[in-house]
Amino acid sequence: MTRPLDDTHDPGLRSWVASANDPAGDFPIQNLPLGVFRRRGRSDVPRLGVAIGDQVLDLRRCGELRLFDGPPEVVAAAREASSLNRLLALGPEAHGSLRRAVSTVLRADGSRAEPAALVPLADAELRLPVEVGDYTDFYASIVHARNVGRLFRPDHPLPPSYRHVPLAYHGRSSSLVVSGMPVKRPCGQRPPAGGERPSFGPTERLDYELELGAWVGAGSRPGQPVAIDDAERHLGGFCLVNDWSARDLQAWEAQPLGPFLSKSFATSVSPWMVTVDALAPFRCAAARPAGDPPPLPHLASARNDALGGLDVTVEAWLESAEMRRCGIGPMRLSRARFREMYWTVAQMVAHHTSNGCPLRPGDLLASGTVSGSEDDAAGCLLERAAIGAPATLPTGERRGFLADGDEVTLRAYCSRDGFARIGFGSCSVRVLSASGGSPESR
Amino acid sequence: MTRPLDDTHDPGLRSWVASANDPAGDFPIQNLPLGVFRRRGRSDVPRLGVAIGDQVLDLRRCGELRLFDGPPEVVAAAREASSLNRLLALGPEAHGSLRRAVSTVLRADGSRAEPAALVPLADAELRLPVEVGDYTDFYASIVHARNVGRLFRPDHPLPPSYRHVPLAYHGRSSSLVVSGMPVKRPCGQRPPAGGERPSFGPTERLDYELELGAWVGAGSRPGQPVAIDDAERHLGGFCLVNDWSARDLQAWEAQPLGPFLSKSFATSVSPWMVTVDALAPFRCAAARPAGDPPPLPHLASARNDALGGLDVTVEAWLESAEMRRCGIGPMRLSRARFREMYWTVAQMVAHHTSNGCPLRPGDLLASGTVSGSEDDAAGCLLERAAIGAPATLPTGERRGFLADGDEVTLRAYCSRDGFARIGFGSCSVRVLSASGGSPESR
Repeated sequence: MTRPLDDTHDPGLRSWVASANDPAGDFPIQNLPLGVFRRRGRSDVPRLGVAIGDQVLDLRRCGELRLFDGPPEVVAAAREASSLNRLLALGPEAHGSLRRAVSTVLRADGSRAEPAALVPLADAELRLPVEVGDYTDFYASIVHARNVGRLFRPDHPLPPSYRHVPLAYHGRSSSLVVSGMPVKRPCGQRPPAGGERPSFGPTERLDYELELGAWVGAGSRPGQPVAIDDAERHLGGFCLVNDWSARDLQAWEAQPLGPFLSKSFATSVSPWMVTVDALAPFRCAAARPAGDPPPLPHLASARNDALGGLDVTVEAWLESAEMRRCGIGPMRLSRARFREMYWTVAQMVAHHTSNGCPLRPGDLLASGTVSGSEDDAAGCLLERAAIGAPATLPTGERRGFLADGDEVTLRAYCSRDGFARIGFGSCSVRVLSASGGSPESR
Repeated sequence: MTRPLDDTHDPGLRSWVASANDPAGDFPIQNLPLGVFRRRGRSDVPRLGVAIGDQVLDLRRCGELRLFDGPPEVVAAAREASSLNRLLALGPEAHGSLRRAVSTVLRADGSRAEPAALVPLADAELRLPVEVGDYTDFYASIVHARNVGRLFRPDHPLPPSYRHVPLAYHGRSSSLVVSGMPVKRPCGQRPPAGGERPSFGPTERLDYELELGAWVGAGSRPGQPVAIDDAERHLGGFCLVNDWSARDLQAWEAQPLGPFLSKSFATSVSPWMVTVDALAPFRCAAARPAGDPPPLPHLASARNDALGGLDVTVEAWLESAEMRRCGIGPMRLSRARFREMYWTVAQMVAHHTSNGCPLRPGDLLASGTVSGSEDDAAGCLLERAAIGAPATLPTGERRGFLADGDEVTLRAYCSRDGFARIGFGSCSVRVLSASGGSPESR
């Protein structure tokens, strides 16, 4: 299920790209996340790249310069593609080959230092890295499910199926956008107030949701469930996901078919896919408490119990227009541990395919809001409201829900003694008003 | 909003393809539905075709033979594409051009009779005609919503938002399949019986849903709602949809996020896209009763009131393995009128984009189960159960839900005095057992 550790994970490795050797950076040589970019201001066909320190290694250029070796289909996909899909489809052995090849190119002790294959991150326009067929959003944090459920069903906040079924809904692919693209406050139907009719207008309860997403690698066949211990062979890597939500629209529309327009105006993802290989040192036990009902057989495995978890710290930060004006800088809203999620990613894959539903390379499986039991670990504003802890900003502003001009930044990282820190970069998005403006432009 | 009537709709038109002149046929020269096919048994790249009588007009061959005229991008899309997406993206004027060009080729009074451009329907392997980005399923029949709601909420069967919001959920694109592909009975979690734990196994409540689907033509831009009177400029045509449902899985998983694995094992569509142009003679008034609350402004228009409806008769037929064995032939389970749907297709488009969600060419918007108020007009078996009318087959077999070996066939057609009958063809699918077998093969 998990990928082997090899010399690409060696914490002693250093790169000839000096900025990659900062121990506090997101993109050391042990990470090597994949993305799609072009040089800012150019209209070139987008190409694949690997983040390294404050640079991007241009994989097309590496191919042209014959900098790396590997199976021909891997080298061709790295050199020719304009999205990660082709590489994702090749599966875990191909991903491992590319990782070893790129690690070799970037090592300080190698002879392949080639600055001509680098583009400064600051000059790179990062794109949505994947052409997404289907986007699924799970609900895998039991803390989040219970806190939010309390608002609607105080007597039994957790749905009766929760501990048996990794609950999820289908999201909208067409409105997936990459970090940096602003999100316009959506309009929609807001519930009737005081027995009146519903009204149509800008949402008054705009929220973020702090999530991780898994990119599907090799697909699965129609009618063929993926066994839980094979699940990770169908994954390529992970990203940050902000599942923007309009809570007033959601409350009005979600019975009985679930969320629809309250979510489909935008879902933001981070540009770098942190690979399953890079995360190998951070596997940990699954979080399901010993006293809970055991999962049904297709969702159970000893390996999943022992190593199904993923020790990633996730954070959400907020900067209001006023904070920007005062130069205060963003404030951390929450921090939580992905290892506390009730359902593991392998369980999500096994569940998703248990009815025969095929996964395709580049499908996105998001985790649902990542919350923890600590006071500062609620992964969305609705949940803060539910536990009676609305956010107060350093300017004295209060945030029951998001205001125009707010910038929400999600971050994630792994750290463990004896291994290099692995960062996810960020997913950072500013909220525009319903007419597309921001407070600064008024 | 609606397309003009022109000489392509003339009921007196006849084709040199003799079978197209049968007044009871689905595919007269006034219809001209588009699909994608290749000759059975060959591995050619699939190509576009038009159904005409019992033949398919091969549009690639037409292009090679220079049989039709039109704007170059339309002729190129018709000749070169392997799915309808490219043509769909060109928008309504292009669709009108192609219709006129094909009508000219096929007219008995023309000089372009070219049997070399025909392939018998019996020799054509029909494909899923569209590469579907996103698939949305509405819930637009108030009769269906009320009947089904009664099972779960006897006191207030209709959700309070129903008359205000065209309710919908996101479906799964990866499991869309074309008519003729059998559907395997899916496994999944069935609810606990008598306080026990849930169990995993083949669904015991497999159901069909009789729906129409609209194929999106020209897309819409992110953040730009489509006005209701512009909605049909974003549609290409219609098909039959069978939204297969596992009711036991659905009951267990659907709170609070809506249906997921209970639907995503398969959704079947008919192979022919009946164009918006072909349906122009069958527009009718929207069905919303005068006493109901008026829709919010973005869902309201005088043109929609007058012409938003679509007068299509839809039918579901069932043939069990036993009926096949006895040579009885299929039995009609239901017949309903699409014109009775509470929400029009234009309202679905306006609603879907009202939050800025972009539509892309080839997206599928399905209507939800089409049911009517008559006794024989319930569009799925769950609804028959709700109204206390389970199906009894001519063999004496009863059908609370579907059995292995059952073949469900959906049909639809338009008929109106003074116009040619327009048929949708069929969506016909056999249910296999969970292990992939059928009763005949035992």
